[in-house]
Amino acid sequence: MTDHAASDAPPRALVFDVFGTVVDWHGSIAREAQTLFHERGIAVDPVAFTEAWRAGYQPAMHRVRTGDLPWMKIDDLHRLILDDLVARFAITGLSEADLAQFNRVWHRLDPWPDAVEGLGLLKRRFTIATLSNGNFALLTNMAKRAGLPWDCVISAELFHHYKPDPETYRGAADLLGIAHGELMLVACHPDDLRAAQRAGLRAAYVKRPAEHGIGSAPPAYADGEFDDVADDFVDLARRFEARWFAVR
Amino acid sequence: MTDHAASDAPPRALVFDVFGTVVDWHGSIAREAQTLFHERGIAVDPVAFTEAWRAGYQPAMHRVRTGDLPWMKIDDLHRLILDDLVARFAITGLSEADLAQFNRVWHRLDPWPDAVEGLGLLKRRFTIATLSNGNFALLTNMAKRAGLPWDCVISAELFHHYKPDPETYRGAADLLGIAHGELMLVACHPDDLRAAQRAGLRAAYVKRPAEHGIGSAPPAYADGEFDDVADDFVDLARRFEARWFAVR
Repeated sequence: MTDHAASDAPPRALVFDVFGTVVDWHGSIAREAQTLFHERGIAVDPVAFTEAWRAGYQPAMHRVRTGDLPWMKIDDLHRLILDDLVARFAITGLSEADLAQFNRVWHRLDPWPDAVEGLGLLKRRFTIATLSNGNFALLTNMAKRAGLPWDCVISAELFHHYKPDPETYRGAADLLGIAHGELMLVACHPDDLRAAQRAGLRAAYVKRPAEHGIGSAPPAYADGEFDDVADDFVDLARRFEARWFAVR
Repeated sequence: MTDHAASDAPPRALVFDVFGTVVDWHGSIAREAQTLFHERGIAVDPVAFTEAWRAGYQPAMHRVRTGDLPWMKIDDLHRLILDDLVARFAITGLSEADLAQFNRVWHRLDPWPDAVEGLGLLKRRFTIATLSNGNFALLTNMAKRAGLPWDCVISAELFHHYKPDPETYRGAADLLGIAHGELMLVACHPDDLRAAQRAGLRAAYVKRPAEHGIGSAPPAYADGEFDDVADDFVDLARRFEARWFAVR
């Protein structure tokens, strides 16, 4: 066990991974791609297209991390990947305005069904914020559309570093004016949580088995590896309530 | 008239000055100082102390702007000024913990009576955010305590520039992903509004005649100098509703 768990005081703030953890990028983008492709007579599988778009994301951030690309926000990386996919899937008939509008589908992702309720419960006890590689405007627009009740929006854009660089996790704690060990990351990606732990944060794993569509394999993690494991945000709120706020 | 006013499309987002415009720093700090000084038998006028604390604010930011001090957040500038005032007013008997707690009174400022309602109305039509020299944690803590319903928190701390440096106004628009002319600053300080206009933003003046206490002189401005002038945030919301959203 870590020394954080030994002390077992509640964290002072929770930051949330967003793509996959809070919102269903897979379903949201596949739905919008299906509608667009149908309207324009584009014979491309929306699910394959969605997965290819997301698969371009880590390599694109890696190019920024290694200096192959200058700092670019996710909107611009999504557009680079989209332009590549339009060529790869031989898509024709989409104007520049169509592509700009479609690229912003990442601002219009729908939350998982438990997300708004769970965040509302967690907000009663903790400061809650995003900690996402999504850019600041994307996260702000997404929250306004979906009703995500963040106390504030924190983006990798503020640090010019992408997760899992430690500057992002530590930068979030510094902005919130708390010690690294007083901040907890909530995410459905074990790699993100492990990087947060290496940076000194606490970490709670939330299962999102349908992140890559129904039937995809869940990621592997070890028992006791994280401070908590929950089925969704409402379950996480109940677990934290019982652990730290129950009247004995 | 500016070309902004000529087109008269609504702005896409509103950013708000905070100290004085959203919250009553004068009354909030004088009340807490009065309680603290009474409890500790400190014979200092709370109002004079409050005004001296605020009077140290512009000179302290000027020292950062000119490079006389390295970048420091407002919490640290407030503490520098507080330590100076403790000596100047010959205050004794406050421990380090007392001073740290008192310094954070700037996180606990009460909103003007119309602020929460007015922001709620404006949030229906616009993205609303802070644009304050207060640091990110201060603004986040203040909003959570007071129920200020920001879509996101934007602070001078994110730019390492204090208002009225143009980097702050333009940086806010860039973070929000909109053109400078699509962003409007709302403030009770004509100087702040004029600097925003010079940086390409639109500007709405809200009167806060009691900012420095009842009976203080309001600041001077010219007719037509700003895009709008309102008595408070509810009045501002009503004016914007009539100007841009009324069914004709």
